[in-house]
Amino acid sequence: MNTKLTYYPVKEIDNILLHGRMDTSLNVVPMLSNGSGIEVNVTGSELWADIEADYTDYEPWVAIELNGELISRFMLDRGRREICLFRGIDPSRITRVKFYRELQAMSEDLKTAVVIRGLRGNGSFMTPPSYDHRLEFIGDSITSGEGTYGARSDEDWAAYCMSYSGTYANLICKELNAESRIISQGGWGIFSGWDNDRRHNVPRHYETICGLNSGGENDKYGASRPYDFSSWIPDAIIINLGTNDNSGFNQPPFTDPDNGAVYKLSLNPDGSHIKEDDLLIGNAAIDFLKLIRKNNPSPHILWVYGMLGYDLTPVIVDAIERYKLETNDKNIRFLQLPSANSDTLGAREHPGLKSHMIAAGVISDYLKTYFNSQPLS
Amino acid sequence: MNTKLTYYPVKEIDNILLHGRMDTSLNVVPMLSNGSGIEVNVTGSELWADIEADYTDYEPWVAIELNGELISRFMLDRGRREICLFRGIDPSRITRVKFYRELQAMSEDLKTAVVIRGLRGNGSFMTPPSYDHRLEFIGDSITSGEGTYGARSDEDWAAYCMSYSGTYANLICKELNAESRIISQGGWGIFSGWDNDRRHNVPRHYETICGLNSGGENDKYGASRPYDFSSWIPDAIIINLGTNDNSGFNQPPFTDPDNGAVYKLSLNPDGSHIKEDDLLIGNAAIDFLKLIRKNNPSPHILWVYGMLGYDLTPVIVDAIERYKLETNDKNIRFLQLPSANSDTLGAREHPGLKSHMIAAGVISDYLKTYFNSQPLS
Amino acid sequence: MNTKLTYYPVKEIDNILLHGRMDTSLNVVPMLSNGSGIEVNVTGSELWADIEADYTDYEPWVAIELNGELISRFMLDRGRREICLFRGIDPSRITRVKFYRELQAMSEDLKTAVVIRGLRGNGSFMTPPSYDHRLEFIGDSITSGEGTYGARSDEDWAAYCMSYSGTYANLICKELNAESRIISQGGWGIFSGWDNDRRHNVPRHYETICGLNSGGENDKYGASRPYDFSSWIPDAIIINLGTNDNSGFNQPPFTDPDNGAVYKLSLNPDGSHIKEDDLLIGNAAIDFLKLIRKNNPSPHILWVYGMLGYDLTPVIVDAIERYKLETNDKNIRFLQLPSANSDTLGAREHPGLKSHMIAAGVISDYLKTYFNSQPLS
Amino acid sequence: MNTKLTYYPVKEIDNILLHGRMDTSLNVVPMLSNGSGIEVNVTGSELWADIEADYTDYEPWVAIELNGELISRFMLDRGRREICLFRGIDPSRITRVKFYRELQAMSEDLKTAVVIRGLRGNGSFMTPPSYDHRLEFIGDSITSGEGTYGARSDEDWAAYCMSYSGTYANLICKELNAESRIISQGGWGIFSGWDNDRRHNVPRHYETICGLNSGGENDKYGASRPYDFSSWIPDAIIINLGTNDNSGFNQPPFTDPDNGAVYKLSLNPDGSHIKEDDLLIGNAAIDFLKLIRKNNPSPHILWVYGMLGYDLTPVIVDAIERYKLETNDKNIRFLQLPSANSDTLGAREHPGLKSHMIAAGVISDYLKTYFNSQPLS
Repeated sequence: MNTKLTYYPVKEIDNILLHGRMDTSLNVVPMLSNGSGIEVNVTGSELWADIEADYTDYEPWVAIELNGELISRFMLDRGRREICLFRGIDPSRITRVKFYRELQAMSEDLKTAVVIRGLRGNGSFMTPPSYDHRLEFIGDSITSGEGTYGARSDEDWAAYCMSYSGTYANLICKELNAESRIISQGGWGIFSGWDNDRRHNVPRHYETICGLNSGGENDKYGASRPYDFSSWIPDAIIINLGTNDNSGFNQPPFTDPDNGAVYKLSLNPDGSHIKEDDLLIGNAAIDFLKLIRKNNPSPHILWVYGMLGYDLTPVIVDAIERYKLETNDKNIRFLQLPSANSDTLGAREHPGLKSHMIAAGVISDYLKTYFNSQPLS
Repeated sequence: MNTKLTYYPVKEIDNILLHGRMDTSLNVVPMLSNGSGIEVNVTGSELWADIEADYTDYEPWVAIELNGELISRFMLDRGRREICLFRGIDPSRITRVKFYRELQAMSEDLKTAVVIRGLRGNGSFMTPPSYDHRLEFIGDSITSGEGTYGARSDEDWAAYCMSYSGTYANLICKELNAESRIISQGGWGIFSGWDNDRRHNVPRHYETICGLNSGGENDKYGASRPYDFSSWIPDAIIINLGTNDNSGFNQPPFTDPDNGAVYKLSLNPDGSHIKEDDLLIGNAAIDFLKLIRKNNPSPHILWVYGMLGYDLTPVIVDAIERYKLETNDKNIRFLQLPSANSDTLGAREHPGLKSHMIAAGVISDYLKTYFNSQPLS
Repeated sequence: MNTKLTYYPVKEIDNILLHGRMDTSLNVVPMLSNGSGIEVNVTGSELWADIEADYTDYEPWVAIELNGELISRFMLDRGRREICLFRGIDPSRITRVKFYRELQAMSEDLKTAVVIRGLRGNGSFMTPPSYDHRLEFIGDSITSGEGTYGARSDEDWAAYCMSYSGTYANLICKELNAESRIISQGGWGIFSGWDNDRRHNVPRHYETICGLNSGGENDKYGASRPYDFSSWIPDAIIINLGTNDNSGFNQPPFTDPDNGAVYKLSLNPDGSHIKEDDLLIGNAAIDFLKLIRKNNPSPHILWVYGMLGYDLTPVIVDAIERYKLETNDKNIRFLQLPSANSDTLGAREHPGLKSHMIAAGVISDYLKTYFNSQPLS
Repeated sequence: MNTKLTYYPVKEIDNILLHGRMDTSLNVVPMLSNGSGIEVNVTGSELWADIEADYTDYEPWVAIELNGELISRFMLDRGRREICLFRGIDPSRITRVKFYRELQAMSEDLKTAVVIRGLRGNGSFMTPPSYDHRLEFIGDSITSGEGTYGARSDEDWAAYCMSYSGTYANLICKELNAESRIISQGGWGIFSGWDNDRRHNVPRHYETICGLNSGGENDKYGASRPYDFSSWIPDAIIINLGTNDNSGFNQPPFTDPDNGAVYKLSLNPDGSHIKEDDLLIGNAAIDFLKLIRKNNPSPHILWVYGMLGYDLTPVIVDAIERYKLETNDKNIRFLQLPSANSDTLGAREHPGLKSHMIAAGVISDYLKTYFNSQPLS
């Protein structure tokens, strides 16, 4: 490695933009979930990241963008090492570099972790990029990008299939010049997971930095600590949940290993949802909306749904309307997204890049119209 | 004109497929609304249609398809004449010809009428085309194709801007090999029209053949007579209404010239809909669904909405859910369509052909999935 | 018809743009070939064209554009009549109307003719549209739009299959804000036609107004008269010829009915072209280029080729290079166009609209680059 | 690393497909140029590659495809290490893995090298994929994928901008189920390089395995040894050269540091090419075609050109025709490709992915037609 490079502990760099929820009191930058990472405008011919990674079953994947374009995407093996973010550039040029995690927070592998300890380069850190909007995305496997990489026939739940780079979240951010924070987990729901496991609801981790990861390696990076909502106020919060709740109606009962309780969302003989079970989901949605609003007084809330089927639309719409009546908060809307089809599905019967592009277009159109209709602050 | 051609009174032709609602007891084929017309598989080198047209303000437009492709589209002036449907074809070949009305039933011009009296040709009428599905479409200006022709900047409500050829209805039918019947009227709603005129609700004309036209020229062609729902049983009924009801909230009050009553859907001070007024629309939707189901026991009902904004989604979804609870009829779904944007709008700030193509894709995907999940009859 | 409309003999209207080669000394506007017609910016609620048409076998087709968008396309039957170009428009608005011929000059039917005698309206003719460029197109069936309308399976050489509206010529003109004049004839070549008929070469009619039509009905409209090249100086001349010359190698010999001569372009035993026969074509190309340049000192000449196969590319390129050497005229280029494939073919195994869109993109890109590189005059 | 994995020296694996020209007598797999690498069908949950890389200025980039889809792309730092090709897969499944070099053979950095020494996994190597066609591509920066990665504004000649994954060569191979071998070098030409450096002609390295790399690190991997053309007989050889030769006309003279000779391709005062200099290129093209044919008696030769401008088309076409006359070899064609435009350019004013997709479509169409017209062997 070029010995003329200078090493900068990452938290000593002022001109750096941190992406994703994180404990900023640490002396490292933990990349806790998809889309988390760093972004700099830097001169110099090269830049390296000093990173440390670990995992048991699910290895972290990361990506590099130069000047807004994806140029590299790869897995990280265990251990500490220096990763080249770029090299071979005219040293006087300002290069915009974004280095971010592709893999979701991995609740199934509490060892999965990746942190940035420092950067090494031969230039100066200039004012980092600024964005026009801040968007928070809350979701499940769709928001974790499952299916955005891999072949149509790929079936294994492997880390490479997931991404931030190929998601509607990233595509919307590029279209709107927005930065994002993501809370998402494959298989999880509003009320319960795809297999009726009620522990697998996203809302219960909303108020911690990245509670999806809590109880393991990432606790030392603040995953379980309370999230300071005042630190980054989004313009809009996009929720994409419901797909897994709906799945529970068609799955066998789940026995909670913690307490032996047996859970199942049930169907009527005619195949329709039992009303009470729809209400379990709807009420959980209302509670989640209240929780979100308690922590986020100002952002527009947009609930999007439909990329893997439309079954839960009435339950979500009804919950939103009841929430509005109960709270008199009308700063919320529902938006249905076109379901992926045989042309737009990716790996693992999940939406592929084409499906994410279509969804991103519909949501971006909506948000542009919404933002344009707002008074200038 | 070639004197070797033979004239066939249109109702004496057995091998003919009639498109659209009509009084089949007449000795003519009235083309009462968009998509109405005739279709034949015919040999011979040419074929002409003996038609008669009239109008005061809004001239009828028609289109010709040969072998499934649009080759001609033009207005009809007043009077009786023979129109060439095709010529110059190898006489031994079977040509599939569809001749249909582009312009919606014209409630604003009761003189607007066009009928087919006969065909003149030099070949034989073979078994007409058969279709895999029957679809009924109920809607407003979107379903009347307003904006599918004309420049982005065109502003006049002129007949050429409307079509069947460029609508999602036609595109879906081509994708699914389906035939259609259309009941649609620009500016009308479920409960009231774009300007709060409560007479302008589509449901009140649903049970007549084409009541949108009643009270004028078309009454002699059966427009006001009851429609025989058993004569053509659709596989699905697609409703695309709500856009004009929503408009009423932002329009001034309307004074009914018949009785002096003043009507207006109203907003709360915060800009949201007054709940009672939403309920007027929702209840009208429920009544309409009941009316549809009374006359159509079997078809799947699909309510689509969104091509010009999403405001009324919760009202429609709530109405559908209440309808399901009240009637225990679960054979109905809601599907939101992507709103037209600056790239996909056509004339008169209405969805253009690109927007209709996107909507047709979403609905076709849905219907394919639905039809594939049904047991074979 | 509205009796308040005023009739204007077409040649008494000053503010009118005439499209296409024509004898301007006539008191009518003859639409001699594809793309020929009129264009006006006019106020008033409606406008009609007083036209007269005739044919024996191949009926003329025409099209109407309002404000740059195609809204109507239809055949004309024999006789004189008034055609509505638009109606139902706010009378204070300026409407841009273009009315033009879709069908090529019809050398196979010398009775085919259509002329405009007058316009009838209730507004004023304002300054007509102006264009940034003038483009002359010279070609065969591709430039006559054969295949741009009709089903993929359509096989008859019928008038409806041809157009100006769907051709690369029209698409390029829209992209570059250009007006065009077209000399094209299906089946004809540089040296001989698709069937080795040497009379069917386009160059021999280049110096008359529309000699393709000479000897019949259109002679009274000046088709055979010399064309005044100074009357309309193009910025570029696009030649798209060679496809039919190439066909002759694979067709049987042709016996000229005029003189009994037997003609055939021949292949070597290995399937390659006999060199002497390639030279017949190449030399004819050189002669044609000289003829074009003699009459057009300034325009850039662009020879495009390939939409139906690439076989003749070396012959054309060699001819161009020899022409440059002989004449020292270097203001000429060759551009190969992507061949139509199964996705982009239209009726009659000819390029469909998609293929024309691709070709138009390649040529427009080229011309934009060329025009941008020219010194401003 | 999983200690239950088994290490296989790469050359002891029978069921492996080697991509790219290489010396097969070595006990390693050298990845000498873009597209070179290995492909296996393998069971087991994971697979790692034992590789060794080096460079001074231009680091090698590599890519991984699983089941035909790109999932990872990254640079390699100096040294030996094990790279994970995949992990986390159901061990009973057969995974198709391709691991290949993205970066061209790097004549500007003779230290740039990367070899595969072994694979480590826990499954069995099954019969590797088979392909329908073999295609050899010979080219310059376009074929080296320069511009297929990176932002439109990126200007530095850096390794990340180049690829095999984003090139027309790869896209054609996917479309035709073909395997490829690539000989390409950015800035080089048929006769001389972009800067008039006559040493930078691709033909002089055609008969060695990868002479572009000769004289350095890769000589120990056989780069300079003669290539055994009988070892892999292509169905077609696609040459994409000429862009840099043309550049020389507009560049200053080049002084050969080896012998002090000064070289420049020159323009006439009117901006056209001096005929003698065009002939230098054309004659070099003829010599190259003879060299190719001497070593490859059977393949179809296709010369493609145009993605960065059409200037040299007549020179290439003329050379091909002269070659045909001289040799009587007619198994060769010229195909012009659409020039990249502002929508399709990528980094460094080079064709971007979109441009490569368009070129791949045109060439694939041509090759499909060609292969379909050949007698079955």
